[in-house]
Amino acid sequence: MRIPAATDVQKAYNLIKPFVHQTPILTCNSINQICDVELFFKCENFQKVGAFKYRGATNAVLSLSDEQKKNGVATHSSGNHAAALALAAKKNNVVAHIVMPYNAPEIKKKAVAGYGAQITFCEPTLKARESTLLEVIAKTGATMVHPYNQWEVICGQGTASLELMHQTKGIDTIITPVGGGGLLAGTATYIKDIFPSVKVIAAEPLMADDAYRSFYKGELIPVVNPNTIADGLRTSLGTLNFNIIKNKVDNIYTVSEDSIINAMRLIWERMKIIIEPSSAVPLGAIIENKEIFKNKKVALIISGGNVDLTSLPF
Amino acid sequence: MRIPAATDVQKAYNLIKPFVHQTPILTCNSINQICDVELFFKCENFQKVGAFKYRGATNAVLSLSDEQKKNGVATHSSGNHAAALALAAKKNNVVAHIVMPYNAPEIKKKAVAGYGAQITFCEPTLKARESTLLEVIAKTGATMVHPYNQWEVICGQGTASLELMHQTKGIDTIITPVGGGGLLAGTATYIKDIFPSVKVIAAEPLMADDAYRSFYKGELIPVVNPNTIADGLRTSLGTLNFNIIKNKVDNIYTVSEDSIINAMRLIWERMKIIIEPSSAVPLGAIIENKEIFKNKKVALIISGGNVDLTSLPF
Repeated sequence: MRIPAATDVQKAYNLIKPFVHQTPILTCNSINQICDVELFFKCENFQKVGAFKYRGATNAVLSLSDEQKKNGVATHSSGNHAAALALAAKKNNVVAHIVMPYNAPEIKKKAVAGYGAQITFCEPTLKARESTLLEVIAKTGATMVHPYNQWEVICGQGTASLELMHQTKGIDTIITPVGGGGLLAGTATYIKDIFPSVKVIAAEPLMADDAYRSFYKGELIPVVNPNTIADGLRTSLGTLNFNIIKNKVDNIYTVSEDSIINAMRLIWERMKIIIEPSSAVPLGAIIENKEIFKNKKVALIISGGNVDLTSLPF
Repeated sequence: MRIPAATDVQKAYNLIKPFVHQTPILTCNSINQICDVELFFKCENFQKVGAFKYRGATNAVLSLSDEQKKNGVATHSSGNHAAALALAAKKNNVVAHIVMPYNAPEIKKKAVAGYGAQITFCEPTLKARESTLLEVIAKTGATMVHPYNQWEVICGQGTASLELMHQTKGIDTIITPVGGGGLLAGTATYIKDIFPSVKVIAAEPLMADDAYRSFYKGELIPVVNPNTIADGLRTSLGTLNFNIIKNKVDNIYTVSEDSIINAMRLIWERMKIIIEPSSAVPLGAIIENKEIFKNKKVALIISGGNVDLTSLPF
């Protein structure tokens, strides 16, 4: 299986740069003191649609041929990828077809509709989502844009780390959350080619530890109906993602639900920024492994800030 | 009554600059579109201790004589001023004596204690707070630092607008929240001397509208036990503050509780930053008066981000 290289991430960045926010790096003295580490937070919660997913979706849309653009793009998602693809398509005058379970949260339906996407509702099962998506594609000729298991998407997500390395100096380690593996694979692709001495580490909820188990077993072991508060990380690794991750990632840490919630609260209270639970998993990994990261310069990718304010875990 | 001038704000800035964060200006396309205005948010929620109050407290501490520094500073407060004075004093090796009601939230007691302040608890009445503070001052010889009705504090708070004007171009209007009036008076002092064409406007909860009524009546009318979610704005205007405000402020808008909560939620959801209810009042004023601000370039001072995450209004 051919995998992308850092040059592909660089090409993606050249393409998407006019369309994405260069998100800031924030630091926080009090969290540094609590954790005995020097942290750099790459704030993709401030990215358009509130998540790094906008990078990969934008790269996928901009990589279409003119012919493909006419027929639009399609995906099934009820999360950040749906909103990201809908907006990325809209900004480029491409139609987005989004398949969503009918019981998706109203706020997500509204967001996707607000970006002008064509929504097709289906039963809330993976099977129904996939078959409905295939019907939509058959009818429209739209190009499928996968949330993570796709070359252009992985390269687009890797641009967050490309920016990060230009915004900081002397980083020892980068930690990203891992769900489907788009962000992690993109990060490892760029970093291990250009900065081979920088460690690329993933943080995963213990309750959805398929990446951890797959990484150490050497084969894909999907997770079934994981029950974690980190809703963005409930998906299992993609095949292309796993192929990159197993060769380029240094380590994967699992994180308990308590540590995820503690880390999320720490960031909200000390940094005054809103992050979604998935984004707290890397800090949770540091809190659970303080000795390992002691006095290191560690960058954490804050993957997104889309959270239901009416059901917070604290 | 002698009042400060812009040069005094500039002097305060020269003094405190090494000790305070230069907080960022954030913008938000979607809120601009919703409100039909171009907004610039001066994010003092990212200031040390999470509030602009750190500016005034730092200026007050740095303005002490060596003799005064030896005897420390004192105030009564259960809010941001207590934490601000405690940290400003600590950073300058000055003892801070803080009088707090015994029923103040645990988190605030801890924060102030964490900054090394000497805390004296008292009954939760203004009378008890004032008499206890006088006892502490009599015993220690500490210098009183008022949360708002004091020259150095007003000039310190004005430095937020000084920074803001250097960070932006072409601002038509600045809106600050108003409670005791330190931030508003400091802002008006600086802006009206240096940028007389820029409008300085205050936004106040309708449920605590003493500044509005005082401003239009031309005399101080204190408010008694106001019931607003904007806990930082429940105090009444100080005399020195009023003297500045009545001459230099262009307008005061009152804002309903619903609009405050809507504005707060809009900022949390769209900007992914945590602000306290008081900070939402200026955006609430814009939401209630869209026609007046249409197409203008308006700067809003986000006063702080200290909020109890376990009792949010949404």
